[in-house]
Amino acid sequence: MENILVKQLYRLSSEFGGKKIRLSGWVRTIRASKSFGFIEINDGSFFKNIQVVFDEKLDNFKEVSKFVISSTITVEGEFVITPNAKQPFEIHAESIKLDGNSDNDYPLQKKRHTLEYLRTIAHLRPRSNTFSAVFRVRSLAAYAVHKFFQEKDFVYVNTPLITASDAEGAGEMFQVTTLDMKNPPKTEEGEIDFSKDFFGKRANLTVSGQLSAETFALAFRNVYTFGPTFRAEDSNTARHAAEFWMIEPEMAFAELSDYLDTAEEMVKYIINYVMENAPEEMEFFNTRIDKGLFDRLNNVVNSEFGRITYTEAVDILEKSGEKFEYPVKWGVDLQTEHERYLTEKVFKKPLFVTDYPKEIKAFYMRINDDNKTVAAADLLVPGIGEIIGGSQREERLSVLEKRMEELNLNKEDYWWYLELRKYGETKHSGYGLGFERMIMYLTGISNIRDVIPFPRTTGSAEF
Amino acid sequence: MENILVKQLYRLSSEFGGKKIRLSGWVRTIRASKSFGFIEINDGSFFKNIQVVFDEKLDNFKEVSKFVISSTITVEGEFVITPNAKQPFEIHAESIKLDGNSDNDYPLQKKRHTLEYLRTIAHLRPRSNTFSAVFRVRSLAAYAVHKFFQEKDFVYVNTPLITASDAEGAGEMFQVTTLDMKNPPKTEEGEIDFSKDFFGKRANLTVSGQLSAETFALAFRNVYTFGPTFRAEDSNTARHAAEFWMIEPEMAFAELSDYLDTAEEMVKYIINYVMENAPEEMEFFNTRIDKGLFDRLNNVVNSEFGRITYTEAVDILEKSGEKFEYPVKWGVDLQTEHERYLTEKVFKKPLFVTDYPKEIKAFYMRINDDNKTVAAADLLVPGIGEIIGGSQREERLSVLEKRMEELNLNKEDYWWYLELRKYGETKHSGYGLGFERMIMYLTGISNIRDVIPFPRTTGSAEF
Repeated sequence: MENILVKQLYRLSSEFGGKKIRLSGWVRTIRASKSFGFIEINDGSFFKNIQVVFDEKLDNFKEVSKFVISSTITVEGEFVITPNAKQPFEIHAESIKLDGNSDNDYPLQKKRHTLEYLRTIAHLRPRSNTFSAVFRVRSLAAYAVHKFFQEKDFVYVNTPLITASDAEGAGEMFQVTTLDMKNPPKTEEGEIDFSKDFFGKRANLTVSGQLSAETFALAFRNVYTFGPTFRAEDSNTARHAAEFWMIEPEMAFAELSDYLDTAEEMVKYIINYVMENAPEEMEFFNTRIDKGLFDRLNNVVNSEFGRITYTEAVDILEKSGEKFEYPVKWGVDLQTEHERYLTEKVFKKPLFVTDYPKEIKAFYMRINDDNKTVAAADLLVPGIGEIIGGSQREERLSVLEKRMEELNLNKEDYWWYLELRKYGETKHSGYGLGFERMIMYLTGISNIRDVIPFPRTTGSAEF
Repeated sequence: MENILVKQLYRLSSEFGGKKIRLSGWVRTIRASKSFGFIEINDGSFFKNIQVVFDEKLDNFKEVSKFVISSTITVEGEFVITPNAKQPFEIHAESIKLDGNSDNDYPLQKKRHTLEYLRTIAHLRPRSNTFSAVFRVRSLAAYAVHKFFQEKDFVYVNTPLITASDAEGAGEMFQVTTLDMKNPPKTEEGEIDFSKDFFGKRANLTVSGQLSAETFALAFRNVYTFGPTFRAEDSNTARHAAEFWMIEPEMAFAELSDYLDTAEEMVKYIINYVMENAPEEMEFFNTRIDKGLFDRLNNVVNSEFGRITYTEAVDILEKSGEKFEYPVKWGVDLQTEHERYLTEKVFKKPLFVTDYPKEIKAFYMRINDDNKTVAAADLLVPGIGEIIGGSQREERLSVLEKRMEELNLNKEDYWWYLELRKYGETKHSGYGLGFERMIMYLTGISNIRDVIPFPRTTGSAEF
């Protein structure tokens, strides 16, 4: 007899009703009386468990009664549809075999654990309901991202993680080295001699794949990255990790509005894909983690995202009469309180704010004709604030060089980035989505440590 | 008028015949005489260019005649099917507009460049035929991997890249630090004080996600990783990079033969997917890079992979009468010359060699009943040798601990790995595929530097 998966039993239950089946899985709960007992089995294929009923007819009834949680077992028996019971079906066991024992002190007994405690057993927490749901949704959302872009013929590009260019400037970097830190080679001037390091020069972990992705967009038109990114920022918040995954699409022959159209379509696609493919998990989040989740996600999927300029946004905020912790005026960066006010109170839906002052944005963003603002846009969503940032890129070589001079950037560090303009000034645009932010948004989970399998944060790289 | 993509013109040419169209792209070649000229345009959407014919009727004929390669242009005109010409269709231009200029010294002029030279312009090489084909195939193959596993309900898990465990042992590691290497903090004993480092301890870049993936397989049953991996090995070969991508599936309730079945199906799936979705690129590789490519790939797709034990393999090699550089006897590791002899000369198809002596394999591989061999297997393919390695994992806690003691491994470093066994000894198996090896195999490209967008190797982390 071939093993059946719990997922098959849930999805095709009528096919299996009354049939003999066999399955292997882990004991999630067990209760036994003198003459009968119940085991809930999970086999990893599905969010929910399946109930096994057993009684004295089993040769090894006494042994089975003493099975402990997390043991591995194989059950054979009849699959019985139970329309009047609490659970829709159960297995009436004819044999139960122990494949692998577990220890009595298994930490994930059936009681509520705090998320903080579960972080200390990150090797076991995917076996809990919450993390089973989180990491299956993470997997499906990742696939939705690939499916969305591949169906549009975007080329997936793996930009490098180790970089010898100091040129990224988007955040604090980790250094990568094979030098002996205790006795590093030194130059005659007493500096560390990085020419002896693995790459022959100082190397870091990347903070963004964007500049590399631009090189590919100018060959393949539409490309996207989806890979790890690093920030060595010493910030111990619920929203920052030292290692996280980013999605960075980059599109040639595309203006700012093309980025907005693509990003809006992508966000809706990811939500729809996960809602369709993980209904049990999403129901769990909506019931147990964040009771407003479905309302919020439905609102995103069914709205046409708003679009206003930064100048309009500042005007709205100034006239709002709201007391903000950080006062607003034209030229300052918007804080989360402002972003949330705009998207939650004024627009009540996702909102793109466009055309920010050039002083508060990156050097590569395209300068508008007013020479004061750049063709940048952030996507703000209710409940969270900014979730995507991007811009049209400055494709005009002379304008870009002038801007770099103003900002005292060393053009030699960017020689290849500038050559992309030298050899064909092509209009192009792109954006970045922090993948973990998206998972938090999809699940209602509020700490980034709980959407990453083994999170890396200040002071912590366990497992 | 909306812009049309070159891909649409090739795939749906009959729909567009005789119609007015507009498209934007880059000049790949241009020749002009006194009264007419030809431009080949590529717009990034497709491997092939499209030919534009223009003549004196254009207002700006003289200007257009002087356009240089890599300029960005927009063409409007009639799409004309040309059944009797060399190219199947062309555009008769009614207007050609310059959107962005290019410099005259563009390095990718229409002549043959060596792959070595093209590596020095990695920011431009995706615009060449060879790299356009390589990186589109790489993107499609990556998607095929995700599609294959997602359709089988495998959960995609992002294992951590920064690791504080020294426990992986699969290769030399890069160190990750935020300490000031010139003046690092020291302990009283004069050692580097890693408690002051970002993670509070010494941290490295991972060499494999396998051990982490096992934790997820024991929750989700079937999982896979697909992410970057690092080796700080000082080997300057055509087959080694310091940063590369690995696919590491891990399956619970699975024996060695389940790994072999899954790996065989996966390899065939990836080849079929790429052949179907990149026919022009694959034709290019078969014609221009490796004339035996299609024969080799068809042989893989149409064969049932062979399966022999290491002991049988050694027997065949000993009786072969071949003169090998490295002599063979039971207990030695197989060299590429042996692997290629077996798969190319004896079996003439892909071949799994199983059950290697435990001494030449990793500590976590499951010991067979003979107590001499382990349930490991390598997949050997004609033309390359080993392409996949994997095993059933030792799930028996006491056997695993004994093996670790024999090898002097520190059990405390592996506490969580051992706990996976303590809490449910579950049979499981997994394997690893180096993604770049697969791309080299799919394309016939022989240097790993030419299948990675911006390769990182000993002494080199350019761009």
